[in-house]
Amino acid sequence: MASGIDRTTIRAFDIFAALSDTQFEDVLAAATPKHAAAGEAVFEQGEEARWFFVLVSGRLRVTQVTAEGQQVIVRIVIPGDLFGIAKALQRTDYPGTATALSDSVVLAWPTTRWSGFMSAYPSMAVGAMQTMGDRLQEAHSRLREMATEEVERRVAHTVLRLGNQSGRKEAGGVRIDFPVSKQDIAELSGTTLHTVSRILTAWEAAGLVEGGRQKLLLKNPHRILLIGDGLVPGLL
Amino acid sequence: MASGIDRTTIRAFDIFAALSDTQFEDVLAAATPKHAAAGEAVFEQGEEARWFFVLVSGRLRVTQVTAEGQQVIVRIVIPGDLFGIAKALQRTDYPGTATALSDSVVLAWPTTRWSGFMSAYPSMAVGAMQTMGDRLQEAHSRLREMATEEVERRVAHTVLRLGNQSGRKEAGGVRIDFPVSKQDIAELSGTTLHTVSRILTAWEAAGLVEGGRQKLLLKNPHRILLIGDGLVPGLL
Repeated sequence: MASGIDRTTIRAFDIFAALSDTQFEDVLAAATPKHAAAGEAVFEQGEEARWFFVLVSGRLRVTQVTAEGQQVIVRIVIPGDLFGIAKALQRTDYPGTATALSDSVVLAWPTTRWSGFMSAYPSMAVGAMQTMGDRLQEAHSRLREMATEEVERRVAHTVLRLGNQSGRKEAGGVRIDFPVSKQDIAELSGTTLHTVSRILTAWEAAGLVEGGRQKLLLKNPHRILLIGDGLVPGLL
Repeated sequence: MASGIDRTTIRAFDIFAALSDTQFEDVLAAATPKHAAAGEAVFEQGEEARWFFVLVSGRLRVTQVTAEGQQVIVRIVIPGDLFGIAKALQRTDYPGTATALSDSVVLAWPTTRWSGFMSAYPSMAVGAMQTMGDRLQEAHSRLREMATEEVERRVAHTVLRLGNQSGRKEAGGVRIDFPVSKQDIAELSGTTLHTVSRILTAWEAAGLVEGGRQKLLLKNPHRILLIGDGLVPGLL
């Protein structure tokens, strides 16, 4: 383990919480820390999955490109999340590309260690399952929204989800603490950049959000929730 | 364990495959078999998750109803699948309703046993993770389709997915071996009953599928795949 990694932070991650101190040290000793600068890929879709990872700090975006070349965001990775666990998906390659949205530090373990870890440390298996359960619930929420909600409601639910996962309370509201682009929001909501721009412009004019270059501030999350849940009309 | 349950079939399910014979007997001894007639719910959304299950035979549909009362299908459960594993999702209630599409037999274990099983039988934890991984990949495929594909392509991918999960080869093509309604296909594709009816009528006229009351026959899966992948134009 290199220096510059805060052990206390890592020890507190859900996935390691139930390990004994000795077990934690064993697991950590097998990890290689890696740095990814903003914009850099940790791994690419289709690449052989030689490593699995835990994000220590920063933010990643996992995207998939369809056969026709259209990109969709699978999810945002936040610190403490397991990712690149192709083995758990019974795959030998990565199903998507993980790109750093801001400077990020990850811990990497060889994929060959996955099964051994899961057998030796059942609490890590339970933690991994919970990670997958969270992702599954998020994917089902997005599917439900795509199938039943008008676009403005979907955008509302998308920015609230980002706020819940990655928001920091400040005086003026909830700041999404990594650079999220309108294109990111469009891909997460299953709509176009043009539509997201129109919605955010209307919301900004009504005092619901503030662009502040790239880090979005949710000034009135309650009203955004009412729009998302269809309890008040949208602004478009 | 009641009689009428075929042990050989159950022993072969992926989730039990790596258990020793003794472990398998222990796990099976803790199970209660239950029967669900077609149309009957095994559990309902919001109900306290007192049991988790493995489907032994039959087919289930898991649905979620939104706050506004719109129903979406989360997935189709096939024999060997774990389901109702609210504990793995860190929930105390079932997030959806599981309804038998045809007469079904399930094995049920008390949710209180979940954590113990996962610790005592790491291979079951690995199996559970693979189940969740499969579902996650399916959910991501559906999200990608919803975000990037026109409706006829989505319907093509939906019926092919049903064929892959639950199809039986026969002389005339691939028969989806449980009663799937146009409404089911509409919910799985994120579209309306009306649109699915129009698409299936056009496909039937062109010899791609055959309705045969309820059990859909895919007469030309290759051509349906070409439509799904956008390599030939749709028929609508």
